[in-house]
Amino acid sequence: MASTDSNPFRSMNGPMEPERILLAHGGGGRLMHQLIDGLFGLTLLDGAYDKKHDGVVVEPGSTRVAFTTDSFVVHPLFFPGGDIGTLAVWGTVNDLAMCGARPQFLSAGFILEEGFEMDLLRRIVHSMRAAADRAGIKIVTGDTKVVDRGKGHGVYINTAGLGIVDRNVQIEPGRIAPGDVIILNGDIGRHGIAVLSAREGLSFAFALESDLAPLAGPVLHMLDSGIDLHCLRDLTRGGLASALVELATTRGLNICIEEQRVPVCAEVRSACEILGFDPLYVANEGRFIAFVSPADAPTALDVLQSYGTGPSVIGSVTDCVSGIVTVRTPLGTKRIVQMFSGEQLPRIC
Amino acid sequence: MASTDSNPFRSMNGPMEPERILLAHGGGGRLMHQLIDGLFGLTLLDGAYDKKHDGVVVEPGSTRVAFTTDSFVVHPLFFPGGDIGTLAVWGTVNDLAMCGARPQFLSAGFILEEGFEMDLLRRIVHSMRAAADRAGIKIVTGDTKVVDRGKGHGVYINTAGLGIVDRNVQIEPGRIAPGDVIILNGDIGRHGIAVLSAREGLSFAFALESDLAPLAGPVLHMLDSGIDLHCLRDLTRGGLASALVELATTRGLNICIEEQRVPVCAEVRSACEILGFDPLYVANEGRFIAFVSPADAPTALDVLQSYGTGPSVIGSVTDCVSGIVTVRTPLGTKRIVQMFSGEQLPRIC
Repeated sequence: MASTDSNPFRSMNGPMEPERILLAHGGGGRLMHQLIDGLFGLTLLDGAYDKKHDGVVVEPGSTRVAFTTDSFVVHPLFFPGGDIGTLAVWGTVNDLAMCGARPQFLSAGFILEEGFEMDLLRRIVHSMRAAADRAGIKIVTGDTKVVDRGKGHGVYINTAGLGIVDRNVQIEPGRIAPGDVIILNGDIGRHGIAVLSAREGLSFAFALESDLAPLAGPVLHMLDSGIDLHCLRDLTRGGLASALVELATTRGLNICIEEQRVPVCAEVRSACEILGFDPLYVANEGRFIAFVSPADAPTALDVLQSYGTGPSVIGSVTDCVSGIVTVRTPLGTKRIVQMFSGEQLPRIC
Repeated sequence: MASTDSNPFRSMNGPMEPERILLAHGGGGRLMHQLIDGLFGLTLLDGAYDKKHDGVVVEPGSTRVAFTTDSFVVHPLFFPGGDIGTLAVWGTVNDLAMCGARPQFLSAGFILEEGFEMDLLRRIVHSMRAAADRAGIKIVTGDTKVVDRGKGHGVYINTAGLGIVDRNVQIEPGRIAPGDVIILNGDIGRHGIAVLSAREGLSFAFALESDLAPLAGPVLHMLDSGIDLHCLRDLTRGGLASALVELATTRGLNICIEEQRVPVCAEVRSACEILGFDPLYVANEGRFIAFVSPADAPTALDVLQSYGTGPSVIGSVTDCVSGIVTVRTPLGTKRIVQMFSGEQLPRIC
């Protein structure tokens, strides 16, 4: 990465400046994927386990265990519909769910900034416990570090999760096949806009809450209904668009989406119009896409409908192998969806 | 904790000021344990798993799995004998080892500060991979977040680890018994002094390296030699003294240590004299204590001797039940060891 002319840092830093981390490296877009695929993928990760997934399924002994981690640096710590504590628990629960795992155990690592108010920490810790109880996961181990004032931002939280994966469950990008139907479990963009409004003190003419929710319930419900889930992906940083592009690229398959089938509520639509955002790229914390065969789609929709978030079949996988995501607009025209280099809204999780 | 008069924050913040996090809350001493036992123990952790240990042993399915996490905020990032990357891998490997686990899988979560030099990140990531390879653990999943300039300190790393624990292994504070012999695997204080010298730019008349090392090897070697390890504890934040006091208090047993049997190298001794530190409280990253029955002590010593760090029987557990740690000095006098409120040296791991 460092030695190519297309290096994205060169021009931003000048020829003599060292390459540096940009906010965009955490944004869920192209720069983050370059970092993950490049440095982390090539150097850090054990190749056998690098499946471009939200978590990994390992077998310590005779049990299939999903294992995943996320750090949470959301700003502000409290936002409409949630806080960093709930997010830290459900975010990792959701990564386990995307592996088809039954969430079991969670670790919690806190990086506290000197001077952080103890009362805020108490609220966050109580949120975490309530979120864990609701998702049926147990917090069993943890760690606390404190950094000097000005070297943190109140609190950062890391969680790692363990879940059990049934032997017949195989959910991963490698199983996406031509003809697969793509189901989205609800409308998009609420989380990103809710966090942004709290951060910037924007007051819209409406009260919009994050879609933050635990997703293990609907996923396990689909599995228990006999649906063969090929792949799942939750739509966090980078939103629906980045998730689709990443999967299409990884698998070298084309994906075609009908824009009018992607639900966007009026509040998110207005906010995006005012702010110049594309809702396809706005972050969610309770939304995911499922790749299933057409035969399984009606049952999957039925199951997801029972959760009240308004699921929808938004598109399908075609047998072209160019790895492109196309969106068909309501006017019938098509546009190719690309990954942004960074994120419209940094630090939303 | 908040409502008692003995609240340690009240007096430091004044009566009208909110309680706040202090650097000492991360120091491995009394304040950190109050936070862990109070807020985290009572609210966050599932009671069934709160065993005052470095990790937890869970059973997802039919396999006994040790699960542990640590965040690493060491400053500076590079120090004699190691860097944050090696520390982040071996620190968690060592927590697994303290549960008697065979380390298997590791997650890595990065919190990067905007502007951090990519070359430093590369060096750290390479260190992590080399450390993982040497300890026989695979890094299988990860996460990357970026925070705004001035809201981090280059890079913080969280790792969580999984290891397999044999069914007959039961290593935990609850198994410490009167009569147990306490073995220390080597001399103490190198890590804390090495990090401090790098941070403050102190140049002593000697080159002192951290004792940072992976500990799964010696622990598994002892288990394979048939030793019934009652409890293990690595001597990180707060050093030997804090580890002993925590275990004595948890178990309500007395511990007596012979000061002259605790190895301290000449360099650490001089540095501590100059700086006014007590080596018993200085952090280590490659040292641990083992509680074994007297019958197992000779074999344990033999095994540890083969690792060349100079192990020593430093004391024993008595049948008194007051939960006190006593040190007998070379002059024959005794002093009671207490936990510091914080840490002589913050951010050493």
